[in-house]
Parts: sequence; structure tokens; C-alpha cells
Amino acid sequence: MDDKVDDVSRDDVPAPSRRKFLAQASAAAGAMAVPPAALAENGANLPPNVPEWSRTQGRPFLSPAYGLPSPFEKDVVRVLPNPPAAFPTGTRTPLQELKGSITPNGLFFERHHANVPMIDPREHRLMVHGLVERPLIFSMSELMRLPAVNRIHFIECAGNSSAEFTRPTGKTAQEVHGLLSNAEWTGVMLSVLLREAGARPEARWLLCEGADAASMTRSVPMEKAMDDAMVVYAQNGERLRPEQGYPLRLLLPGFEGNMNIKWLRRIKLGTQPWHTREETSTYTDLMPDGTARQFTFAMEAKSCVLSPSGGQKLDVHGYHEIYGVAWSGRGRITAVEISTDAGKTWQRARLQEPVLPRALTAFRADWHWDGKPCVLQSRAIDETGFVQPTRARLIAARGTASSYHYNAIQSWNIDANGGVTHVHA
Amino acid sequence: MDDKVDDVSRDDVPAPSRRKFLAQASAAAGAMAVPPAALAENGANLPPNVPEWSRTQGRPFLSPAYGLPSPFEKDVVRVLPNPPAAFPTGTRTPLQELKGSITPNGLFFERHHANVPMIDPREHRLMVHGLVERPLIFSMSELMRLPAVNRIHFIECAGNSSAEFTRPTGKTAQEVHGLLSNAEWTGVMLSVLLREAGARPEARWLLCEGADAASMTRSVPMEKAMDDAMVVYAQNGERLRPEQGYPLRLLLPGFEGNMNIKWLRRIKLGTQPWHTREETSTYTDLMPDGTARQFTFAMEAKSCVLSPSGGQKLDVHGYHEIYGVAWSGRGRITAVEISTDAGKTWQRARLQEPVLPRALTAFRADWHWDGKPCVLQSRAIDETGFVQPTRARLIAARGTASSYHYNAIQSWNIDANGGVTHVHA
Repeated sequence: MDDKVDDVSRDDVPAPSRRKFLAQASAAAGAMAVPPAALAENGANLPPNVPEWSRTQGRPFLSPAYGLPSPFEKDVVRVLPNPPAAFPTGTRTPLQELKGSITPNGLFFERHHANVPMIDPREHRLMVHGLVERPLIFSMSELMRLPAVNRIHFIECAGNSSAEFTRPTGKTAQEVHGLLSNAEWTGVMLSVLLREAGARPEARWLLCEGADAASMTRSVPMEKAMDDAMVVYAQNGERLRPEQGYPLRLLLPGFEGNMNIKWLRRIKLGTQPWHTREETSTYTDLMPDGTARQFTFAMEAKSCVLSPSGGQKLDVHGYHEIYGVAWSGRGRITAVEISTDAGKTWQRARLQEPVLPRALTAFRADWHWDGKPCVLQSRAIDETGFVQPTRARLIAARGTASSYHYNAIQSWNIDANGGVTHVHA
Repeated sequence: MDDKVDDVSRDDVPAPSRRKFLAQASAAAGAMAVPPAALAENGANLPPNVPEWSRTQGRPFLSPAYGLPSPFEKDVVRVLPNPPAAFPTGTRTPLQELKGSITPNGLFFERHHANVPMIDPREHRLMVHGLVERPLIFSMSELMRLPAVNRIHFIECAGNSSAEFTRPTGKTAQEVHGLLSNAEWTGVMLSVLLREAGARPEARWLLCEGADAASMTRSVPMEKAMDDAMVVYAQNGERLRPEQGYPLRLLLPGFEGNMNIKWLRRIKLGTQPWHTREETSTYTDLMPDGTARQFTFAMEAKSCVLSPSGGQKLDVHGYHEIYGVAWSGRGRITAVEISTDAGKTWQRARLQEPVLPRALTAFRADWHWDGKPCVLQSRAIDETGFVQPTRARLIAARGTASSYHYNAIQSWNIDANGGVTHVHA
């Protein structure tokens, strides 16, 4: 049967590692041997205590027929920042509770600047103008007749994890890194719209503007617009959620979240960036020498172990699969390495296929916890060769005055009782 | 700029097709040219009528913080069968409203036999016994420490579209084919659990049983169990929804939905199938010669155009992208062909990458509607070479007495007014 398992299993666990796991697994899994009474052929072949839900009819169909999670998962929700803000502008995804690469729409992080507009899609328009041959206004139904694509991409707020520049804040992965989510997006390549309008050769930048009361505006380089940028109207199959830009948003895969303009109503082509409020007074990187870096668009490679992670507790010694996610705004993740000794030694994790560019990539590694205190870390490497830096290296280069683009290695401390806490190590 | 578009766009539209589209696109898109007044530099660069949502703060954060669709999408929900059943046992996914390959969890189709149990995950157990060396009982936390994988797979009810054996029923894709959904699943390969328990060489079949009041039981061949079968606890990242088997279900990729036992509590290994109620009195295929085919597990290749589809209306002549989904329980979709003349001629559609085995695969094709009545069809071809049959061919082989495994080509009639209706053609 050894050969059978390795022949037919299509997962990405290399055979030697799998064999090793399986050899140790009975003890490692910690599963109970079945007590003899439970196996007695008592008519129903059931363990002795048959629960209520196996004996009576369950809940009938929901009305309205839009489903929700189990009541037992009521605490798996987005949370406001901790410590609380006087005027909160974002909620965070419960990363440590999620098991796949897709973020359910109900848990996709939020960040907005004038709360969430409720836009009537029949009245919404997108205007494309400026340095174009044919200024155009599109209704939603006109956009939705055009050639579309589906793409899986993450969005990360430029300010995600920014408190980490100074001290460890937040207990859980959600509190520390939760301004990050991943979805399958559907929409039209922006290059198609620019071709329709006839972008003039001298057009090098786009001003993209939202229809919310903040009139969020950002300058986008033409190279990105003609590469993988999209205007999207659907997310994980269904139409965008209101807090994600319903009925239309810009998607700039891998670029800082703020640039992915929600409630998109206008694209103006010009020769220079516009230096809007969101790219001058905010969303710049204050450097140790007092200068501010502007237009640092791409979110660099980053990763986080989610299991075990802050706020969780290891309840047994022995086998635990280490699980986490990695991502890069520059392309595909090529490797993730795991350390269980605060960065002294590293082992290669398994990556979940398919590995897609600018998408959350799940990683996993086998681990036997011996019950001793230790520090868990992960580091991501992307297809440009970039290696996620230690916190010390990031601070040496960037200082501690910045509020954006924090991507240092996350450390989780595990104490002798199995408690997991957020530390800088 | 021609070269630029084709160089940098990474979508799967072949360059010649794209060029053709773009050449015709200004007329095809039907987008309005911007009226001069709208472009006047009036301070805000906006069209003259600025809507309310651009002038006032929007909706604050939700509490509880689990998000929901826009109120404008309130009709995009699962529906009960039409015509109504006295004791409804399923709801259907609004396929024609979905734009991607992922089905949001709130819209994933339902089919159950004793309503939806509300199971406490702390009390739920999975027993593996019968022809094994080490009978085992797993708690959820024990299962969730084991090596896991993420896989995107569809599930289709064996009885999906079954009314079509006799006459066209249902108006929309949802009503006709809505017992079909697709998700990213997370869980443990079943082969890992069987290895843990030490499956004996003589074990050839598994009895898999649910913890609902129907005690749903099905026999599963050992080959499938050791191939790509999983026990899954998460769906699109979050924990399974109650109606999808929370906290644990069996996933047999490509096999008829009924076998993907929800609320999975027991797996018993034996030498022969058990001939349970669900594989004798139901879920068999009654053939023209009066015999019943048993154990026809795989859902064969099938496809459906979703845009345009029944109940929709083409509001303009000219360019429309044809969009739909294809799937096969035998592996990957290798091609989808489109006919706009009731099957006389066919053109190749574009497939959305990545094309994954036993997963919904989106397809798209360019189409210029000339305003004349016509019949739209799609046919799927999978990696085994199987070609989705016409309805006539399916009926010739299978007769009209069956209730399962209907996978004939879907026909949508388009009338001179652009109205789209479900026909047998």
C-alpha cells in the first residue's frame, strides 16, 4: 500500500517527507483508539452517545436564502483596530481562522475614508477622459458586455502591520496583519478600456477617482494600467460587496491597497502624476534621513505563520502542521522557509499549488513540538529573488518613523505551556 | 500601442482574436461618447449630476462584522425548486448571476435529507473502523493538526437538470442546472487517515455515514479513497457552512454530490459495497431496457452558457461576450465549443486559466448579435476525450425514465427582441 499512496495522491507533499510523517503518525495524530464498546454491533454501529442532531430533523431552509456561517463560528468576524481609534476607518480579516487562500467576502478587510456608499448600479458611470481620442462614459451594463477575465489576487493595505515599526502591538495575526485579503476578481482589463478610448502616446499617468464622499484619487502609472490592471465588478463569483467598491473598483494587482480605487467613477489620462492628498500627505515612506519616498507602489514579499499563531495554544506535544500564507506584489512566491529557533536554522515549507502571481500562497511544514519554549518564524522569497527581511534589517534600512510597507519577518513565541504570543525576536 | 497591448496583457485571449475585437470595439461596446458639458473643467471634473453618495458619509461599519451583499443584489439568492415541492430538499445556486469560478458560500447549492443539523464541533467525532489495524476516533482538533491541502473542486447533485429528460423545465440557468457549485476546500487527504488506521489489504469499499438524522450512508470504492478523496473542514477559507456539512464532510472530487457525505461521522472499511438505500432505491440510472445502472459515480463532462441565458434580455445589437462554465468529473476540461446556430457550426471558446481538474472552468467567446433569432449552445470536451452529447444522443442511449446524470447540451433560444428562453433544440 506504500506505493499506492504515493502513486495516487496528488498533493504536493514530497514522498520522503510523507513517509516520515506516516511512520510517526499514529502517535503524532493523538487520535483515540476506539474503545471496544463503541465497536459493538448494536444495530446502528454508533458510539454509545447519539447526539440530538442525529435523532431529530435539523433547521429548515433559510429565508432569505443567502447563507451564513454556523452559530458556533460567531466570533470569526472582522474586527476594528486594537487599540480602538476615535474614528475607525478599517476592519481586519481573521487570518488565523482561515484555512484556504480565498478570503470569504464577508471577512474581506475594509479600509475606507468616508464610510461605505450605497451606490445604485443603474446610475453608476465610469468616465474615461483626458489624453484620449474618444472620451467615453460606460454604464455598468456596457462594461459587463465587454471581454472579461477572472484573476485571483491579494489586496494588502499599505499600512498593514505598521505599528510593528515601533513595538509589538496586537495579539493575533488578525490584529497584527489583518489588513490583507485574497479573492477571485472578475472584470475587464484596463488596457481594453484605454484602447477603446484611444489613449494618446503622450499619456503616461492616470488619475483614478472614487465616487464615495472622500473622492479618493490616486495617480497610476501607464505601465501598470497596460499590464495587469483591471476594472472589476465581481469578487469570488458574486458582485462586489459595498465595502469593496460596489459596483466597480480598480484592481492593481500587488500595488498598495489604497491605489485600488473603490466605487471607481473616473479615469483621466495625463502626462504627470497629480500629487493628490493620498500620495503626498499620506502613503509616503518617511526615511531615517528625513526624506519621504513617494510612489512606492508594490507590496514587497511577506509571510505569516497562522497556525500556530498569537492567541492560540498548543494543547499536546508531538505533531503539528505549521500553516501560513505568503504573498508578493512583485509576482509569484518561489519559496517559504520556516524557523523554529528564532531564525538560527531554516527549513523549506511545502507550497500549495497552483502558485499564482500576486496571490496569497499557502505554505505548510511538518513539525514535532517537544514541549520546550521556542520562536516560530517564516520568510518568503519571490520570483525576483527578494527575501523577506528580519525586523532588524528592515529597521536599519527604513528607520521607525514610517507608517507603510512594513514587511519584516513575524515572530511567534511559544512558551512551555503551549501559549503563543507576538514578540519581536 | 498595438504591440504594447499584446505584449503586456497576460490574459488568454489570443492576439488575433483580440485585435479583431478591438478593431470593432468602439461600436460594439456601445459606450456613450462623453458630452462636452461633462468634460468642462468645473472644479470637480464631474458629470453635471453628482449623486447623493458622492456628497455624504456612507454606512458605518457593520455589527456583527460579517459582511453581506449590497441591498441592490437582494434577489441574488438560492431558490427552492420550481415547480415547488411538498417537502423541499434542495436549493439552487444563481449560476446566471455569478461571474467567476468560485461560488460564494452563501450561494452554494443545498441538498439534504433531514434538514440541516446544528452540530457542536467540540462534540463531533469521526470514527474509522472495520477492516483496519487500528480503529480510531478523531476529534475536530485532532483532524485539524494533520497535514492538510487546499483544492478547488465542483460538487454537482446527481439529479441536477434531471427534469430535462422529459421536457424543458425552469426558465433560468439557476432553475435548470443550479444544483452545481464550486469552492476551494481545505482538509486532510482520506488516504492519510486510512494509512493512520492501517487499512487491511482485503478492504475494497468504505461505508461513509453522516451525523444528520437521515444517517446518510454511501459505499465508496477504495480506489477513490486512496486517490483524491478528502475529509474537509473548510470551504473558501472559512469553516464549512452548516448546510455543507459543518464541521466535517467527505469530498469525492467529480463524484455525484450525494456521495460527498456531509456531517461525516463514520468510515467503515469492508470488502463489498453495502447497497444502502441511497444506492438502491435512489441514485441509480433506470435504462431503456428496464435495468438500473448502479454505482455510476462520476459526473460526466457538461457545460452551460450563463450569459446570455434564460430569463435575460439582450438590450442592444452588436458585441456581447458569451460567458459560461464547463466541468467534468473525469478530470480537466480541454475545450469548450460554442454554436450560435443550434449546433450546425461550432467555434472554440477561450478557457480561463488555471484550468484545474474536476473544477468549474469559465469559458468566453466573442459574439456579434445581428438581431436575428438564433439558438445558443455550448459543448464541453474533457481530457478523456469525452464530448458532451446532444440531448437526442443522450436520450437515445439512456431513455427518458432516469432521474440522474443528465449532461446534454443546453439550448437557449434568442428571439428578435433579445429575449432568451430555455428550449430543447
